[in-house]
Amino acid sequence: MLVIMRDHASQPEIQHVVALLSEAGAQAHLSGGEVKTIIGVIGDRETVYSLDLQGLPGVEEVIRVLKPYKLVGRDFQPEDTVVRVGPHATVGGGAVAVMAGPCSVESEEQMMQVARACREAGATMLRGGAYKPRSSPYAFQGMGVEGLQLLRAAADSVGLPVVTEVLDVRDAETVAEYADVLQVGARNMQNFMMLDELGTMGKPVLLKRGLAATIEETLSAAEYVLKGGNRNLMLCERGIRTFETYTRNTLDLAAVAALKTLTHLPIIVDPSHATGRRELVGVMARAGIVAGADGLMIEVHPDPEHAKCDGPQSLTPPDFAEMMESLAPLLEIQGSRLGWS
Amino acid sequence: MLVIMRDHASQPEIQHVVALLSEAGAQAHLSGGEVKTIIGVIGDRETVYSLDLQGLPGVEEVIRVLKPYKLVGRDFQPEDTVVRVGPHATVGGGAVAVMAGPCSVESEEQMMQVARACREAGATMLRGGAYKPRSSPYAFQGMGVEGLQLLRAAADSVGLPVVTEVLDVRDAETVAEYADVLQVGARNMQNFMMLDELGTMGKPVLLKRGLAATIEETLSAAEYVLKGGNRNLMLCERGIRTFETYTRNTLDLAAVAALKTLTHLPIIVDPSHATGRRELVGVMARAGIVAGADGLMIEVHPDPEHAKCDGPQSLTPPDFAEMMESLAPLLEIQGSRLGWS
Amino acid sequence: MLVIMRDHASQPEIQHVVALLSEAGAQAHLSGGEVKTIIGVIGDRETVYSLDLQGLPGVEEVIRVLKPYKLVGRDFQPEDTVVRVGPHATVGGGAVAVMAGPCSVESEEQMMQVARACREAGATMLRGGAYKPRSSPYAFQGMGVEGLQLLRAAADSVGLPVVTEVLDVRDAETVAEYADVLQVGARNMQNFMMLDELGTMGKPVLLKRGLAATIEETLSAAEYVLKGGNRNLMLCERGIRTFETYTRNTLDLAAVAALKTLTHLPIIVDPSHATGRRELVGVMARAGIVAGADGLMIEVHPDPEHAKCDGPQSLTPPDFAEMMESLAPLLEIQGSRLGWS
Amino acid sequence: MLVIMRDHASQPEIQHVVALLSEAGAQAHLSGGEVKTIIGVIGDRETVYSLDLQGLPGVEEVIRVLKPYKLVGRDFQPEDTVVRVGPHATVGGGAVAVMAGPCSVESEEQMMQVARACREAGATMLRGGAYKPRSSPYAFQGMGVEGLQLLRAAADSVGLPVVTEVLDVRDAETVAEYADVLQVGARNMQNFMMLDELGTMGKPVLLKRGLAATIEETLSAAEYVLKGGNRNLMLCERGIRTFETYTRNTLDLAAVAALKTLTHLPIIVDPSHATGRRELVGVMARAGIVAGADGLMIEVHPDPEHAKCDGPQSLTPPDFAEMMESLAPLLEIQGSRLGWS
Repeated sequence: MLVIMRDHASQPEIQHVVALLSEAGAQAHLSGGEVKTIIGVIGDRETVYSLDLQGLPGVEEVIRVLKPYKLVGRDFQPEDTVVRVGPHATVGGGAVAVMAGPCSVESEEQMMQVARACREAGATMLRGGAYKPRSSPYAFQGMGVEGLQLLRAAADSVGLPVVTEVLDVRDAETVAEYADVLQVGARNMQNFMMLDELGTMGKPVLLKRGLAATIEETLSAAEYVLKGGNRNLMLCERGIRTFETYTRNTLDLAAVAALKTLTHLPIIVDPSHATGRRELVGVMARAGIVAGADGLMIEVHPDPEHAKCDGPQSLTPPDFAEMMESLAPLLEIQGSRLGWS
Repeated sequence: MLVIMRDHASQPEIQHVVALLSEAGAQAHLSGGEVKTIIGVIGDRETVYSLDLQGLPGVEEVIRVLKPYKLVGRDFQPEDTVVRVGPHATVGGGAVAVMAGPCSVESEEQMMQVARACREAGATMLRGGAYKPRSSPYAFQGMGVEGLQLLRAAADSVGLPVVTEVLDVRDAETVAEYADVLQVGARNMQNFMMLDELGTMGKPVLLKRGLAATIEETLSAAEYVLKGGNRNLMLCERGIRTFETYTRNTLDLAAVAALKTLTHLPIIVDPSHATGRRELVGVMARAGIVAGADGLMIEVHPDPEHAKCDGPQSLTPPDFAEMMESLAPLLEIQGSRLGWS
Repeated sequence: MLVIMRDHASQPEIQHVVALLSEAGAQAHLSGGEVKTIIGVIGDRETVYSLDLQGLPGVEEVIRVLKPYKLVGRDFQPEDTVVRVGPHATVGGGAVAVMAGPCSVESEEQMMQVARACREAGATMLRGGAYKPRSSPYAFQGMGVEGLQLLRAAADSVGLPVVTEVLDVRDAETVAEYADVLQVGARNMQNFMMLDELGTMGKPVLLKRGLAATIEETLSAAEYVLKGGNRNLMLCERGIRTFETYTRNTLDLAAVAALKTLTHLPIIVDPSHATGRRELVGVMARAGIVAGADGLMIEVHPDPEHAKCDGPQSLTPPDFAEMMESLAPLLEIQGSRLGWS
Repeated sequence: MLVIMRDHASQPEIQHVVALLSEAGAQAHLSGGEVKTIIGVIGDRETVYSLDLQGLPGVEEVIRVLKPYKLVGRDFQPEDTVVRVGPHATVGGGAVAVMAGPCSVESEEQMMQVARACREAGATMLRGGAYKPRSSPYAFQGMGVEGLQLLRAAADSVGLPVVTEVLDVRDAETVAEYADVLQVGARNMQNFMMLDELGTMGKPVLLKRGLAATIEETLSAAEYVLKGGNRNLMLCERGIRTFETYTRNTLDLAAVAALKTLTHLPIIVDPSHATGRRELVGVMARAGIVAGADGLMIEVHPDPEHAKCDGPQSLTPPDFAEMMESLAPLLEIQGSRLGWS
């Protein structure tokens, strides 16, 4: 941490800061010219993060150099984390996941149909929502446990693992009975109690970046899960909120490339939620792979016109199959492969 | 809802949309010129919100005219909601709340000191955090139940009601034992399960606007609580996330003025979290009152330099007393009064 | 400037940075612990701003402590700048300007009518656009020189000074013949060539904050004008672009309060463009005054329904008169007065 | 255009809107249920864009269905525009441009060195800034005409065309003497006077998206140039401003894919300015190509450590050569080729 003092800060002001630091068990290193003094602070992460010196007399700015995370960083673990999901699927270290399926589970027939189509086209996991976070209380909220059962049955019938969202921390255990990957939605990225809970469970977790979360905050949220002991974590870029309204969100592929340098965790890209437009899903999936993504999350629905949610961004099974074919040469160029063995 | 067809959309495309609408139980009204056809859709809120026609052949754009909320709107209830908190405090309808206290409960002494100071200066409620949402798992996370007990004891000693955050839906009952107002933090604004839960409880709720939530989404989140049966709801503007970094967030006072026209619920302003800078808290509190706020949430700490969180934005007791004095003439101009009887 | 080296940066990496600094004429001060080295850089503003060390081997981050501006800062000039406009109007140092008038000049009758109404209600300057920046080339672009003439004549008939926008640097001289204040619109805030030009002219300048400009960038743009020799500068907050769409922009009143601490220049608030909604203009004007604004810019039109631009946010003359009346008690509380003598 | 009336708007309110429309020469089509009336407006683009009905009594919302642009749209011209630059370079319709060179022209030696390196690696145009838009007046502002001369000489020596920025409309003619493509920077995207001027010149224009410009605004700005008669226009995505600070801007590749569906104009991607980080430039260039870009703009400097601007995001010649090699298989997959004959 660095404490930048105001121009011509007084000696008592400077000494006051130094005293507070020493009191808290941190070390202060002064360096300054005639006009400006800068105080370098050395201490452990927890100590330094508990210090709030901004606002003291004479203090102009406090800059935190120490990152708020450790376990998720490449400094801590240089090699890629590889997450195993079910007997056949892997993600990370060159293995690319394709998680496909409908926004929400609607019926047995829908799920069986979509599961078969996804499996045939090469998806490595089946996704589907049983609990749906909806802005309006008047929108369809999901089928709940029955949805989990239909999802599991459909996945089993084609031998795919299941990815589905935990919307309420109280349902985590129940969802874990049916799912292979527990998804944390964008709105829950900073639901720290849920992150704590999932950190103590063994199941792989997929953590989506919040609508307005920075890269650093996303990594800090990930740190909660790893700190709890669960190393089977994947992150997901699903678009951030900006002033642009043509697309549903702004897909931040540079964040994907940046995350690959900062963390060893696998990074998934969700072009369906990011763009909100069917015609952009395939092209952004391909761009995501080239940006370095370890996986894709794609909404597929046998009959998007009648989908209970997110129809406009869902691919039909033939569209999805076409997208999958178009990925192959790009995976080869990236030196990657679909994560299935 | 309006469905805007593309220029020169074909008759079969138009008829297909009409058929889907009719199938879903909604009515379609066509109006069009030579180039463009527009389909007006009439139906109940739930039906219309379950329709996702974007992405159909020939459809250019789908525009939702019906608001995703009802109970929170002025159309539904023109007169201001007045929320009673404890035996003496009220909020709304001209009664202005001042919720003051430290970011986090740290010790008995701290709480007793700050409670006395807040009461003396004219605060109408005592705030303090027992469970703290922190970006980093290495930062102080709050004292938990012990914090709730210290907060309650301090508040009782000066006769003020208590406002505190529910961070985990599983703690809602426990928090309700100690608190008079259950606060939902910005990160939980779209934690719909928690909103559902609080909607079934009788206690007043304070719902903070999410970091990247629109006015409409904030009202839709509020609708969850009212739909559950709990009409004792207050909203809180605490700054949104923008590209500006000088202030912690961007305080959106026009949203306060706009919300006063759109909803009957009381609106609270939190200039402490919004600005993150002590020197801006008082002035933005005053501007908030003039923008029409029904209350303020102010961080006060007896010793901000040693605060475990948010020191830089906390007022000292004398600063707070000064701020309170400066509010008096503005309340008079607004035709309002402190909500205490 | 501070150069934060990566953890365990090598001695050659550190020495390389020090050598580059010394080569450029800046001084390097090292301070470091076992893990991290930080290099403090001392030098003059121009030198330090020409150094781009980010991206060098071993460099983690470069932090600029020195502000990119000087003349506009309170450090350079602690007392408020007071700008004189015409024989009677002043802005700053307790004098509050009210610049009122239509979005665009449309006809002699319109201007005469609005000028009288504004003068009677207490406006201290007349505004109106002769050159209009419009997103679409198909929208009304203003009356040009004829508009300037109508604006001047109307202003003279009631004895008010004129504020109007310079849209093209080639028109600066022409506009200066008719106007007392040269306005730079938000889209031109970083049109540095125009700022250079206006810096060499004697006329007072009103510089609007860009749609996505930070406080620091706004002050840096202001520095261009002062560096050219023109000290008669006012800044204007007119809302920034965020994800919120209910209001046209997000009025950042905390930026107004912050700017008052950072710069000696007068700060104007434009609630008309910021909100884009007539019903919010008056209340945000009042909140702006309380936030510390030295002036207001208000769109007034005798017949908003037929306005050629910005009708929805224009006040009618009676609305404007009512707003002006409501300001009086607030100015008294602020210890300010209308800037007219 | 659609005018959505408030619930239960009165007949006189509705008739008033209809009368205003008819007065302006537009046609009104009413459609409504018991609660809500919607008025469809038919008229030409110019008429409809001059109508500002928001704010009228009884009007809830005005929705513009007609796009504010025409000539740039795929409806107007379905086939791709192909821009010819100099005798050998083309952009669009499968021809991909690579515009490479330093942020700013600094010396003859620097330019000769970089020109050779760019040419050898396969760049199709040479870029370089002679006039630099800098936030701070204390930063290097470019070499001016001398820079243009050095740029031209270096380009001629290797047979590449020149791309460079017009910062001041008064310099447009001068720049056109030396350059083959006139670049409009992000800060000037809505400098409509400059767009008008460039619209009347024959030279190809490269228009960069503004820092906070929507896709629609970018297309509207482009319309200014085409309306003036100049069809040789390219657009450039260079990152938008969001809350994320790890990258300099947020590269919006979905906007590239979207623009390819909306307009026939070639779209260039600038990963250097967008990311601000050397290590992300190559990967985002590749992702840009896959997103559908018709060209790239890449900062290359022989000695980034001593660059006068944007060193941290400049590639060295070997890095650039490596990037160029990595593009080849992607271009093949896209069915594209470098735009050089």
